[in-house]
Amino acid sequence: MTHKVLPHLTQAKAPLTRAITAINEHGAVQNIEVPAERALTVYVDKKEIVTLMTLGAYPEWLVLGYLRNQRLVEQLNEMESITVDWDAGEAGAGVAAVKTKNGLQNLAEKTQHRVVTTGCGQGSVFGDLMQNLDDLQMPESQITQEQLYQIINAIRLQESTYKSAGSVHGCALFNHQSLQLFVEDVGRHNAIDTLAGWMWLQDIQFDAPVFYTTGRLTSEMVLKSAQMHVPIVVSRSGITEMGFVMAEQLNVCTIGRATNKHFLCYTAGHRLVHQPHLAQSSIKIT
Amino acid sequence: MTHKVLPHLTQAKAPLTRAITAINEHGAVQNIEVPAERALTVYVDKKEIVTLMTLGAYPEWLVLGYLRNQRLVEQLNEMESITVDWDAGEAGAGVAAVKTKNGLQNLAEKTQHRVVTTGCGQGSVFGDLMQNLDDLQMPESQITQEQLYQIINAIRLQESTYKSAGSVHGCALFNHQSLQLFVEDVGRHNAIDTLAGWMWLQDIQFDAPVFYTTGRLTSEMVLKSAQMHVPIVVSRSGITEMGFVMAEQLNVCTIGRATNKHFLCYTAGHRLVHQPHLAQSSIKIT
Repeated sequence: MTHKVLPHLTQAKAPLTRAITAINEHGAVQNIEVPAERALTVYVDKKEIVTLMTLGAYPEWLVLGYLRNQRLVEQLNEMESITVDWDAGEAGAGVAAVKTKNGLQNLAEKTQHRVVTTGCGQGSVFGDLMQNLDDLQMPESQITQEQLYQIINAIRLQESTYKSAGSVHGCALFNHQSLQLFVEDVGRHNAIDTLAGWMWLQDIQFDAPVFYTTGRLTSEMVLKSAQMHVPIVVSRSGITEMGFVMAEQLNVCTIGRATNKHFLCYTAGHRLVHQPHLAQSSIKIT
Repeated sequence: MTHKVLPHLTQAKAPLTRAITAINEHGAVQNIEVPAERALTVYVDKKEIVTLMTLGAYPEWLVLGYLRNQRLVEQLNEMESITVDWDAGEAGAGVAAVKTKNGLQNLAEKTQHRVVTTGCGQGSVFGDLMQNLDDLQMPESQITQEQLYQIINAIRLQESTYKSAGSVHGCALFNHQSLQLFVEDVGRHNAIDTLAGWMWLQDIQFDAPVFYTTGRLTSEMVLKSAQMHVPIVVSRSGITEMGFVMAEQLNVCTIGRATNKHFLCYTAGHRLVHQPHLAQSSIKIT
């Protein structure tokens, strides 16, 4: 294993919620928490790339994952540092300054196509990625229905901004049934990019990586999973037609409507070892 | 009133759902409907602007609203036609060809900043719009709690792709409590842009326009409402901090968690005429 030269990252975690008051249907004042939503403008070697609207939990991993999933950066060691300063930008925006060692090749060309997906605007996702689908090789791994239930249960028990303030999406990376990282953001594309950034920094090869997302299984979610070589994606929500078509093509196992003992497996069913007796069982999996 | 010269629009509505099979927790095959998700690449005078991932219900209004909300086009009569062809693009993407009369000024400049909001990537929303917030003047209008309940009820009764296939966002424009248009899309930013496009085509000044959205009240949703001079936004979901801050600044009334008799009014409370006795009432509003 070659030793990775990691970029230097700040740790600019920002407060995730804010207390406000609202008036309810009885005309009474109610104190509530709402999730933060912050603008973070990303510059690579002083060139403006994009402004991300984010919760602000792990901004450096988010930027890292964004650059990777947009295929703007290929190797970690191309980057010297990522410095996040929430107070540095115009009109109240935060700034993430990415410093590369030798500049990035073809940056203008790579950022010229724009796609507004269901959940976000992701540079060249469609234009370039769609045409290279066959290059993405998925590892041969499976999970059992029991492990799936353990994943659903781990998410249920997870402490979260969602529980305290609502209005955020959660994404998590599991290895088999074991939770590796749980990330929330106001945009689900940010949550998955943050996971991607974190995974990139790890010197670990995951055996049976599984994504969990509270969001829908859209084309974007399936593509990003495939890009990160994660062959199984579990969601509380449903699937779109293009998510379905791409997952079939990419051999990604998509499992939706996953709550309690229920789920629907849409694609690559051979990756899920069915244990239907567990669905009837009243034994609680903890 | 000056007569508007309307651009010529195709009516390329595409099938909104598709039947697929899935395997449930009992190992049984289940037939379900999933919402379509289509790529639509927008060209203005043959220059590629963006690829939108959309359900495909009203693609021409979507493109119109997108161009308006991105401030790429100022006047309807700048456009000759919008022609949508679902089979014309590369890699299976549809094409929306916008033909202008005299070309658009500063197109390159206007499309150079990118913002990925919670729900989408919207060109210059942040960079430009944030700095012009004070220019947006909201009409002085109000709704009563009774009208709010009628709005919530109208949405409940609405036939929808959501009911048959799930996984889409719905947005609607009301005038007082009267439903004008209901639009669904796989991305809520598309649904609101479609409403914007439709509104633009109408020769009507709405008295007391109200938006309803199933999605969250984020900065983007509040900004777009303000851009369209709609001063009241109702949502089934909650609000983010930036949505809250902007709504206060713009004098937009935001009402979230609106289901049955419940709601929370976050901002511009003077626009909602409270009738707390209706919250206790067991009389059903139909």
